[in-house]
Amino acid sequence: MPARLHQPDLGVPADLAARIAESARTTTSPVSPDIDDWLAGKRQRPFESVLVTLDELTDPQGWRFAAGTGNLEHYSGRFFTVEGMHVTTNHGHLGQWWQPILVQRDVAILGIIAKEFDGVLHFLLQAKMEPGNADMVQLSPTVQATSSNYTRVHQGRPARYVEYFTDPGRGRILVDILQSEQGAWFHLKRNRNIVVEVTDGVPLHEDFCWLTLGQIHRLLRRRNVINMDARTALGCLPVPATLGALTAGEPDAAPESGGRHTMTELLSWFTGRKSEYEMSARLVPLNSLVGWRRDAERIRPESAGNFSIVGVRVHARTREVTSWKQPLLAPHGLALAALVVRRIGGRLHALVRAEVLPGYRDTVELGPTVRFMMADYADTPAHRRPEFLDYVLSAGDRVRYDVVQSEEGGRFLHAETRYLVVEAGDDVPLRVPPDFAWVTVGQLLALQRHSYYLGIELRTLLFCLNSL
Amino acid sequence: MPARLHQPDLGVPADLAARIAESARTTTSPVSPDIDDWLAGKRQRPFESVLVTLDELTDPQGWRFAAGTGNLEHYSGRFFTVEGMHVTTNHGHLGQWWQPILVQRDVAILGIIAKEFDGVLHFLLQAKMEPGNADMVQLSPTVQATSSNYTRVHQGRPARYVEYFTDPGRGRILVDILQSEQGAWFHLKRNRNIVVEVTDGVPLHEDFCWLTLGQIHRLLRRRNVINMDARTALGCLPVPATLGALTAGEPDAAPESGGRHTMTELLSWFTGRKSEYEMSARLVPLNSLVGWRRDAERIRPESAGNFSIVGVRVHARTREVTSWKQPLLAPHGLALAALVVRRIGGRLHALVRAEVLPGYRDTVELGPTVRFMMADYADTPAHRRPEFLDYVLSAGDRVRYDVVQSEEGGRFLHAETRYLVVEAGDDVPLRVPPDFAWVTVGQLLALQRHSYYLGIELRTLLFCLNSL
Repeated sequence: MPARLHQPDLGVPADLAARIAESARTTTSPVSPDIDDWLAGKRQRPFESVLVTLDELTDPQGWRFAAGTGNLEHYSGRFFTVEGMHVTTNHGHLGQWWQPILVQRDVAILGIIAKEFDGVLHFLLQAKMEPGNADMVQLSPTVQATSSNYTRVHQGRPARYVEYFTDPGRGRILVDILQSEQGAWFHLKRNRNIVVEVTDGVPLHEDFCWLTLGQIHRLLRRRNVINMDARTALGCLPVPATLGALTAGEPDAAPESGGRHTMTELLSWFTGRKSEYEMSARLVPLNSLVGWRRDAERIRPESAGNFSIVGVRVHARTREVTSWKQPLLAPHGLALAALVVRRIGGRLHALVRAEVLPGYRDTVELGPTVRFMMADYADTPAHRRPEFLDYVLSAGDRVRYDVVQSEEGGRFLHAETRYLVVEAGDDVPLRVPPDFAWVTVGQLLALQRHSYYLGIELRTLLFCLNSL
Repeated sequence: MPARLHQPDLGVPADLAARIAESARTTTSPVSPDIDDWLAGKRQRPFESVLVTLDELTDPQGWRFAAGTGNLEHYSGRFFTVEGMHVTTNHGHLGQWWQPILVQRDVAILGIIAKEFDGVLHFLLQAKMEPGNADMVQLSPTVQATSSNYTRVHQGRPARYVEYFTDPGRGRILVDILQSEQGAWFHLKRNRNIVVEVTDGVPLHEDFCWLTLGQIHRLLRRRNVINMDARTALGCLPVPATLGALTAGEPDAAPESGGRHTMTELLSWFTGRKSEYEMSARLVPLNSLVGWRRDAERIRPESAGNFSIVGVRVHARTREVTSWKQPLLAPHGLALAALVVRRIGGRLHALVRAEVLPGYRDTVELGPTVRFMMADYADTPAHRRPEFLDYVLSAGDRVRYDVVQSEEGGRFLHAETRYLVVEAGDDVPLRVPPDFAWVTVGQLLALQRHSYYLGIELRTLLFCLNSL
């Protein structure tokens, strides 16, 4: 490790926290004054993404069903594969199940360049088309690239700006951490969330724009504008816990302190949850899945199951390759991710849940208070509904944030999640079931410095909470 | 999460750090004045552990080779299995290999009860026989039990004192964290390292004794006395970085500060190592391994490979079951684990290496400067020898610790490692190859609060370093 810097490191550098707070307070910028018009313009470009049959999807120079396993894979061996998974577990009431799963072994970069303009930190986002996006174009990180991209398996040009993240010494690393993605849909997937601050000039391509954190927070109130990768990369910044209005006025002590539980207690609770639940997730041939079938259009569940595997054909001008076909995972309907927060001892706490998912590297990560596929609501008897689901759905004027956002449009077709922050009072008790814990915002941020504590939906909700 | 305590948590509670330091300074105790005699007595008990053929190992009520796969498993489905693994990787020069691997899905408890006597913290250790131990009896945690043990698959009695770790509220948790074990020999294995402090009386069984940390440090200078599980559980205690003589006199600032690298830089380096290396480790049938064969005595490598799988028969009086047979992994000869330390800017730093091993949950954990099977030395050409190997082997009067310790005697047969701490000067440069980094002792302790940063050998070496 050759690099060397002389700054001390007391957790998060104080200057960085202050500069992030300043950027969050700055809600307009002369660098990008007309962001709404600019984005509207980008969204008028002629893209289309249409469903194709599984027969049309396959191609000698593209995707194919592998002989024997029926796994869906790219002829080059790169990108990702759709395989089968057999899960056995002592968690929940199922005991075991089979499902298709997306497998991607290399680490994608979700990289954002940061730079000061007039003394205020701006972040370089890209208006990026993804085939599965509901509104096609959303704001993504500066670079959102698998190693397949930057090693040019596409035969196209390398992702713009990727050298800021692959060449060392281009700038100062503000954060650089692996985090998981959807543990129900991805097998062991993790991405590199990285923000690099530069001081030199950065050439600006027309599909990119510099935004303050305040501008991004404003766009986060709109449906499907800030994409999942931008939310997670920016969410990993060490945002001070006293930033948002909800947490304003809290004591300025060490962020980990003053909670209902000490950090040692929280880590012990988390360890206990991981020890309680056994889950074995074994990859199996896609054509061997019990309860699933492949027809002309899709790989679909025979009865239970809330997603299918489909194929799409895409035409686009702003991607590295101008036209392609690919498989996507298509959820059946809207998901809900709701976080209940309340003040305890003068400090804002979030009610998080230990979520057991087969794609996680260590069985359990922290999720929102409630995560649920809304299409399942009608068929789920009251005693099987997740705890706090009916509470958050009837929270009325306790709702502080209620916006639909997209999940990764490069892998999922129209995967939308309704993100909800509910500020509770005494109506939600301090004593909660064993899979739940009240955690301060500062404790969540401290945990988020490390990999695999916070799942993707909780990271989005924490980012939204800090924007309020 | 129902429990509640009111103490603040600024990282490690100050009172705990001071009390651990006090226990470390206390090298004799009226509670256990004759520990050497007591241990010598325990070692005179009539145990024996003898090699048996693989035919003798198998038993309808015991171990068997599964039909089809040839995997070695217990008829009950519990304990552990010996399976095959196929590894493909871009790390190192091999590209791919096959090997047997130990698979154990449940989380074992490595639990130690702590209690103050005359105001000094003591830790309850057990004189425990393990079939693979070189000296049969070593000092282990209070409880060293898989869930197979405490759910009584053995048909024997449950492990003594296990209720202190399975029933909540028995005491104050000092540390409770999952950590990995040997990533070359175990598939995804992790154990729960937990220390609970109690204030009530604890009945003392004759195989157990209360020891101060100072007494344990003294025993750590002897070969094969403190077993691997005791080292890792005690090593996870938040020992203050200024404890040992080597680190004494260091500034008393936040333990993470003042290093050659900030914590943000170290986490980024660690993330970079994980992103650089791809490693896919797939379980395959044990009878399908290329380069391995099963004969009457063992499952052995045909040429390369530095361990075999063997069977042993054990007779013992102090285990839950008085006699049994089981497989063990038998390394071929002594391992070396050496840590180079040196002062940089007045502060002690350790030179750690990012180790890529197929059994790790996320590909990479931090290891010692050098880890090597000494039997391979003669056959390894100079240009293939690990960096710093020849340096540590010729370190002479720079050696600060040089003791052989055992690895887990319940799974490995006579697996001994020579642990070496070498205090370097300018002869080891500050600029090191990409897989290495200089890290302060305080930074290592901060990382060790979380899972899967420090591998098992580095945790042992850090514990030894803090004992000097």
